[in-house]
This record gives sequence, structure tokens and C-alpha cells, in this order.
Amino acid sequence: MAAPPRQRRRTVRRTGQGPAARAVPAPALRSRAVSARATAPARRRASDLIDQILALDPGRRGIAAIARAGAAAAAAHALRGARRVLIVTGFTVANGTPETDGPPGAAVLGRALRRLGARVRYVTDRPNAPVLAAALETLGEPRPIVIYPDNGNVAPRVLAAERPTHLVAIERPGRNRAGDYLNMRGESIAAWNAPLDDLFVVPSGATTVGIGDGGNEIGMGSARARFARLGRLQARIASVVRVDHLVVAGVSNWGGYGVAAALSQLTGRDLLHSAALERRLVQACVAAGAADGVTRRREATVDGLPLETHAAVVELLRWAGRSGIIRP
Amino acid sequence: MAAPPRQRRRTVRRTGQGPAARAVPAPALRSRAVSARATAPARRRASDLIDQILALDPGRRGIAAIARAGAAAAAAHALRGARRVLIVTGFTVANGTPETDGPPGAAVLGRALRRLGARVRYVTDRPNAPVLAAALETLGEPRPIVIYPDNGNVAPRVLAAERPTHLVAIERPGRNRAGDYLNMRGESIAAWNAPLDDLFVVPSGATTVGIGDGGNEIGMGSARARFARLGRLQARIASVVRVDHLVVAGVSNWGGYGVAAALSQLTGRDLLHSAALERRLVQACVAAGAADGVTRRREATVDGLPLETHAAVVELLRWAGRSGIIRP
Repeated sequence: MAAPPRQRRRTVRRTGQGPAARAVPAPALRSRAVSARATAPARRRASDLIDQILALDPGRRGIAAIARAGAAAAAAHALRGARRVLIVTGFTVANGTPETDGPPGAAVLGRALRRLGARVRYVTDRPNAPVLAAALETLGEPRPIVIYPDNGNVAPRVLAAERPTHLVAIERPGRNRAGDYLNMRGESIAAWNAPLDDLFVVPSGATTVGIGDGGNEIGMGSARARFARLGRLQARIASVVRVDHLVVAGVSNWGGYGVAAALSQLTGRDLLHSAALERRLVQACVAAGAADGVTRRREATVDGLPLETHAAVVELLRWAGRSGIIRP
Repeated sequence: MAAPPRQRRRTVRRTGQGPAARAVPAPALRSRAVSARATAPARRRASDLIDQILALDPGRRGIAAIARAGAAAAAAHALRGARRVLIVTGFTVANGTPETDGPPGAAVLGRALRRLGARVRYVTDRPNAPVLAAALETLGEPRPIVIYPDNGNVAPRVLAAERPTHLVAIERPGRNRAGDYLNMRGESIAAWNAPLDDLFVVPSGATTVGIGDGGNEIGMGSARARFARLGRLQARIASVVRVDHLVVAGVSNWGGYGVAAALSQLTGRDLLHSAALERRLVQACVAAGAADGVTRRREATVDGLPLETHAAVVELLRWAGRSGIIRP
């Protein structure tokens, strides 16, 4: 067959490509720890698929502006050989209203680390304990939950008893500049959330990982400048509590799943849960008293997103964790 | 409860946030046609969730570098009131091997446009006709498929007969600078793919939309400079055939679904298919003779990705098309 004629129409018609159209984010390089192992030449290196999935921003919170490429992979590297892990979670958005975001991510990541040989224990406060227990039970995991005492300078005592080599926070309130704890609406929630962030403030020698989606969680101090630039409310609620490895995601649970997917990629083991288990996890949290943190309704949604959306994210992360790249 | 003490540890520990970590893509603004309707202040305006889903790049093709924020929305705006639409699809990757990417996206977008009142017809060549017919049948759609004649300067004849107001191409080879058609490996596929891109080259007055994922498809001429910058192979295979509205996605089918989701958002109607139908669509294409374009195997995968991954993307797009934003 003869080669077809060259294109005849060469005039530029670009109503959909005019100057008002802005470029979609350029591909970001992964952190050196990860990219050093990549074989593709630097110019072709694109964002890690796990990064891209975590950066999905259904709540329009400016996640892409505060997230760092390679964050989940870096956290996974740091956690891979962990011996004693303490996972902190639980966000009470209003009096008596623990939310569905946090415990599922904590349970899934905790299970992954336990399977990799770590001793994993959990710390939360009283309102969130039944929710976290329900999440762990759904996964068939042991439930070594430490309930954080209500008062006193207890962080040093907990740290001395647990001697964690790694501290992980998922969707747990972190204090702001004024020492208060604010929800996404800017209201103080200090009365209903114990100061578990003390565990990350007291020097412990542990490697710290923080996972969040709203800027007001433990760990977000590491991205405070970028987050505070998003607006006045953000600057007010922004936490100052820093971590060694911050993972920002559209939904905090996704961040926990993303680190588990990165651990799968790193170890060649299947450490992430299934889409079917995801549905059961959220349902179990609601049955144990949790509500959606955005709608405040006691229904099986997380951050206003239906169950099927979360199951879909788990499915995508499963693929990303299995290979992360298609090789033609 | 007393406000908790201020953070004591203020030293910066940032092994995971060192200079090697690069920023994840900044949030991109949508094209003016779309963003003019947004109510959020400019500084808080983030990428459209549909854009973010389409930019997922499992094949590491540098999609984010060539995609434009707001592209699916702009294409949907252009197609919304279309009267006569001609949809061109079908990519034969090797002799006798039509691929699973293209016909599902064409059928889903065609169904959406037919439901919105357009007269929709399809054009493909002989190897792809049974695959496209199977996709349409799965959706319960009529199958008005025009088989493009094998030789002769037929484009003007087809255009005169169909008088399309809108021309849409999904995953259809577009000629490169040398007038040849190359696959992603750089091999000529001109012998097995009729020059349907003539329909987009001959002046017709129709508004043109192109959807692709590899740079070598109809429409990619509108992003040729950006794509060619990705490497030597890309510069060689890059198509020169331009369109008014280019939509680039990690998988071309997703691009078609993304435009259908944007049409849903625009019209308030449910115009996207379901995750269950997605599975059946791909299976029907394989039963009709299609193979995976990357693995070349005749199995129910698209671009090397398992069925569940595509079903997950459909599920995410369904949510994005329903609302696209969580309002707390």
C-alpha cells in the first residue's frame, strides 16, 4: 500500500487549545531514593502511578500543591524493616462523632507491616477505639490498641512503654500554631481529641510518618508553608507537627493504602487489601459508630465519597502496587 | 479542656522531604470556557477531577506533559449540541490484530451523544468493524457503521454523504511527518490501517475532536511539539493530524469515557456506562477478534491493564461526572 499523502490542511485551528488552556501538571520526578533504581532515562521518567492516584483530589483541597512525588515510596522504604511500630489514628470531627477516614487506612497499613515482621500496636483515644477495633477485626487482625489517657503528660510514658522504632499517624489531629486543634471548618475540636500529637512532639528517636488530607493532621507541619498558601482558613487550621515522611492524599485512608501498595512494590508481596474488603471495612466502622467526616452522616461513605469510589481507588492501587508500570 | 502545649520540637527533620524530592504537579487551571463558571477564588481552583483521572499514566507515556487541563470539558462543550457526529476509531497494531482500545470508548461516547439528540454514525476499516459492532451491541446501541473503502480518494465522498457537523476520532492512527503510520514501537502499520485521517485533513467545516494516548493518533498533531520532546521514538511516530479539541488520556478508551463524564456533568444526565458494562464491553471486543494493543494477546485486557483497573476508572469517572466536587 502506498504511503498516504501528506497532510493537506496545515492551518492551526485551536479553539480548544487557546492561551486560556493551561498545561496539566508536568510529570514529576520521584525522590532520589526511588528513582535511582529506575532504568528509564531521566527525560522519560514520569510520576509514580501511586503518587498520581493519591493526588486525585475529589475534595478540591489543593492536594497536588502540597504532595511530593515519591512520598509513599519514601515512607515505604523507611517502614520496610521496622521493628516496633506505633500507629496513631482517629479523628473526632464533632462531639461523639468519630469519622470513617483514618482507622481503615491504619488497619490496612498496620496489617502490611505486621506481615513484614514488625510488632505493630495502635494508639487512639476513647471515641475512636471501637471504630479502629472494628476495622482491625474486619481484616482478621489482632487488636493491640492502647487507649491514650485523657490527661497528664502521658506521651513520655507511652513512648517509654512501647519503645517504638517507627511512629505512624493517619488522619489524626495535629495542633496549629496557636496550640489548638481545628477541623476543616475552622472550629476547635480540642475538647474531643486527646493530644496524641504529643507522641510526635516529644523526642523519641523513632522515625516518623504522617498521612493526611486536610492540612490539620499530624505531619502536615512538614508542608505547612505550601498548605498555608492555599488560603486564610488553611493557614489557620494548618498543623505545625512535623514528621520525617509526609504522605498527602485526596483521602487519608488512600494515603495508608498507597504506602501499603508501595510496600507491595518494594517487597514483591501482596500487602494491600481487596476492593471487597474495602467495602466491608467502611461498613464495619459505621456499624461501630463512625460517621462520614464531611457529611457528618452515619453512612458507609468516607469524606463524602461513596463506597464504590473507594473500592475503585483500592483496585487502581492494587495494580500500581503489583507492577506500577506497563512494559510493552 | 486546656489548649495543649505548643510544639516543643522545632528542629527540621526531613529525610523524606529533602531536595531530591520534587513537587507533585501543581494544580492546573481549567480552560477559560470552564473556569469562568467556577465560584472558588482563583488561588483555590484545582485541576478538574476528570482531568486528573485521565492523566493517570500507567504506561508511563508522559501523558501529564502533553495533556491540557479542561480538555475533556472543552470537548464536551463543543459536542453538547452536535447534530451529525461521525466517530472514527479502530487501531490495527499488527496484521489481523485490531486492538481492544478505541471501540469501547467510541461506543460509549457515541451512545452519550445519541442520547443528547445527535445523529451518530461510525467510520472504521474492515478489520475493526466486527470489534466496533460488538461494542455497540453490548451497549444495546444501533450499529450504523460505515466501512471506509480500501482505496481511492474517498474522504470527500464520505464527508459529502454524511455531512458531519462534528468529527470525533478515538484511538485511530494519524500520519506522521513522513506521511507514514507508525505503531508505538516505531513499525509502519500503514498496510493494515486505511487512511481514515483523511477525514480530518480534508476541509469539511466540521468541528473536530481527537482522543489518544500514544502520540501517533489522529489529533495528536495539536500536541506534537510537546510530545516530540519526550524522545526520539516519540518524535518519529508523532502524528501531524490536528483537531480543534484534543483529549489525551492514559488509555484512549478512558478519554472517551472522560468526555462522556464531562457531558454528564454539563447536562446533569447520567451518560456514562457502568463498571459492569465496561467489563462486558472489553470481553465482547475480544470475542469479536480484538487483542490487547500492548501485550498483543487476545485476552480481556486493554493496554496491558486488567479488566478491574478499567472498571475502577469508570467508577471514578462516574463519581467525577456526577458532581466532580465534594461540597462540605
